[in-house]
Amino acid sequence: MTELMAELDPVQLGESAERMILALGAVSAEPRRLVRRFLTPEHRRAADLVASWMTEAGLDVTEDALGTVRGHWAGAGEVAGRNTGKRLLIGSHIDTVIDAGLYDGNLGVVAGILAARHFAKAGRRLPVALDVLAFGDEEGVRFPATLNSSRAAAGVFRDAALDMTDADGVTLREALVRYGKDPADIPAAAFSPDEVAGYVEVHIEQGPVLENRSQPLGVVTAIAGQSYLSIELMGEAGHAGTVPMMMRRDALGGAAEIILQAERMARDTSGDVVATVGVVNISAAATNVIPGHVVLIVDIRSGTDAARLDFVERLKTDIRAIADRRHLGLQVTQTRNVATTPCDPGIAGGIAAAIAASGGEPLRLASGAGHDGTAMAQVGPIGMMFVRCRGGVSHNPAEYASPHDMGQAVAALIRFIEGFRP
Amino acid sequence: MTELMAELDPVQLGESAERMILALGAVSAEPRRLVRRFLTPEHRRAADLVASWMTEAGLDVTEDALGTVRGHWAGAGEVAGRNTGKRLLIGSHIDTVIDAGLYDGNLGVVAGILAARHFAKAGRRLPVALDVLAFGDEEGVRFPATLNSSRAAAGVFRDAALDMTDADGVTLREALVRYGKDPADIPAAAFSPDEVAGYVEVHIEQGPVLENRSQPLGVVTAIAGQSYLSIELMGEAGHAGTVPMMMRRDALGGAAEIILQAERMARDTSGDVVATVGVVNISAAATNVIPGHVVLIVDIRSGTDAARLDFVERLKTDIRAIADRRHLGLQVTQTRNVATTPCDPGIAGGIAAAIAASGGEPLRLASGAGHDGTAMAQVGPIGMMFVRCRGGVSHNPAEYASPHDMGQAVAALIRFIEGFRP
Repeated sequence: MTELMAELDPVQLGESAERMILALGAVSAEPRRLVRRFLTPEHRRAADLVASWMTEAGLDVTEDALGTVRGHWAGAGEVAGRNTGKRLLIGSHIDTVIDAGLYDGNLGVVAGILAARHFAKAGRRLPVALDVLAFGDEEGVRFPATLNSSRAAAGVFRDAALDMTDADGVTLREALVRYGKDPADIPAAAFSPDEVAGYVEVHIEQGPVLENRSQPLGVVTAIAGQSYLSIELMGEAGHAGTVPMMMRRDALGGAAEIILQAERMARDTSGDVVATVGVVNISAAATNVIPGHVVLIVDIRSGTDAARLDFVERLKTDIRAIADRRHLGLQVTQTRNVATTPCDPGIAGGIAAAIAASGGEPLRLASGAGHDGTAMAQVGPIGMMFVRCRGGVSHNPAEYASPHDMGQAVAALIRFIEGFRP
Repeated sequence: MTELMAELDPVQLGESAERMILALGAVSAEPRRLVRRFLTPEHRRAADLVASWMTEAGLDVTEDALGTVRGHWAGAGEVAGRNTGKRLLIGSHIDTVIDAGLYDGNLGVVAGILAARHFAKAGRRLPVALDVLAFGDEEGVRFPATLNSSRAAAGVFRDAALDMTDADGVTLREALVRYGKDPADIPAAAFSPDEVAGYVEVHIEQGPVLENRSQPLGVVTAIAGQSYLSIELMGEAGHAGTVPMMMRRDALGGAAEIILQAERMARDTSGDVVATVGVVNISAAATNVIPGHVVLIVDIRSGTDAARLDFVERLKTDIRAIADRRHLGLQVTQTRNVATTPCDPGIAGGIAAAIAASGGEPLRLASGAGHDGTAMAQVGPIGMMFVRCRGGVSHNPAEYASPHDMGQAVAALIRFIEGFRP
């Protein structure tokens, strides 16, 4: 029991987490920046490192047909020969964006291993088995889709995805075979809904809310749904010096109004909806040419589908009015429509209790970014714990979570597992 | 005299102009689109064609150190041995933009040749000599500056321009030598202010005003001055899903406000100023990233310097207020500041009278685009006649002026010359 208490020392857990994060961060396709795409040699090396930690922790290690590394710590029933089949899945991903930070995804895998190790080292059997999962395809950087590995684990892998190609024309099918996998084994990678008691993921917030509220940890209420509106405005190109203002049909003027209207509307929702224009493409842009054709994309997210869909409809109405008033041709296409994934209230409550037991305030917030949990919700109830990250910065080498906060997160995850009942 | 009258038949003049425009339009670097850069083999071929027309018209042909083709029709005094030295210069340019229309520049050269031919064929000597000029460097497509050939003719060529390089690293000096010219002869290309009675240029409007007012011809009051403001906005990049609206410093939101403010202010000047944003660059743009860094350029033009400079100052104040309110870093750089070139009231009056004599309404308008006249105003009084172009379209293969309107323009130019007194 002494050793157990020592291991629950958040300081020590944080130091372990940081050592592992730094070791994983050294596994990259490039010497000077972190790049770890799905099914690449560096993915292989990272998977092997994760597998070695799992083995060292006392877990049984396997790898599924998508390359997801799995560390299993059998539950009490299973050990006693009564295979209840109930498992608590704890996971995140080890693929990265280009020029990534060290924490996105990787922290969740490290936290899962350290938590399972806590029980395995002490030989403690729990009412459920633990499965720590290191997915390899969350970022969607190599192939034009995300979450293939968690989809396979959730039993909702789409066979059509096997024909997707990467930038070099390699299909996912070919990449899997080169990685030593057999696509015919994908169905066997699926957990059954009967056996999944829950899926829980620790992840950096990737936003500034926890930092702003001076809290190391937060409870995720839902993974936000997303809609993308691609808006094409067709005006009339013209010489910047020769067309009087009143005769112009300036597509960029319309785009500017839409940008401000989306911003205004989102501000007015008091946090229910965020809307962002990150891309504005002006065709044949030149300093001295009135823009005749502009495409902009509005990214709309919310913790509830109703708020998001209502926002989309209201914005569409306003866009139509702006285009009409400016005599611009208009084409609005909804290029993405992903439903909100609510977190399970029971799991969220358990995470909140674990955070409170660590002395924190269990701040509740929606996740604006997508996560493996979106796929895993197809096979069972999910929950997420957010960890404060400096400046809210992510997808960037400046990404940073402190050893203190990581230690708090692992300790809270251990407490959550201890309190978890299937 | 019968032949003379026949030649002033605008229908016939329009047909001649169109034949010549089509012949010139076939002289290109590429088979499928019109591309004719300064001092290229296609510039040489176009210059030779123009020279052959001038010779055929009865003019004395020379070429200056910048490759400008000159067709001279001696005045009455010169023929009588009393060299008054007074010349009326009639010109435009034969270089083009990439994928150009047929009329921009070329029409002014063709009109000048047809007008001089009118007098030369009839053996009519005028109180002034006529010099038809075909400049080769108005568009600034090859080297990073415009008007080098008209600057040389006006005696304001800048020697530093010889060191400018094109995209292949060839300097203007080298290009001139390869074209068979000697840069040492550039000073001799200059007309003397004493001998220049005026410079007149026929040009397509490149805007929609004449078409909108159903007039084939217009009188230019001034070549608009230009200011470019390059505006850099520094906010904070962030994840589109994870940063609450109230915590954002979105550089694109600031840019959108500036775009609309420039437009609103220009509209409020009732035609005194036009302002255009044609370029907006979002650094590392992505659909799901809040823009942290945006550069936009505002192109501001006016027929009067006072109106333009006042506009620039007022807009700068508003930009500062927008950036401050949004907590954005700001850097405003004035990357261009070209003064207005007023047309000579006497020449403008002569052009107006000639248009009226052809039955047209001499609509007065400023030229929002720059022209060789900007340089030629350094050596003498200038004037310009605009020709209606379809849809106001220019710098585009769809550029079009009708034979009817071109015929009217040449007839009016002939009448102007007839009425011109130095």
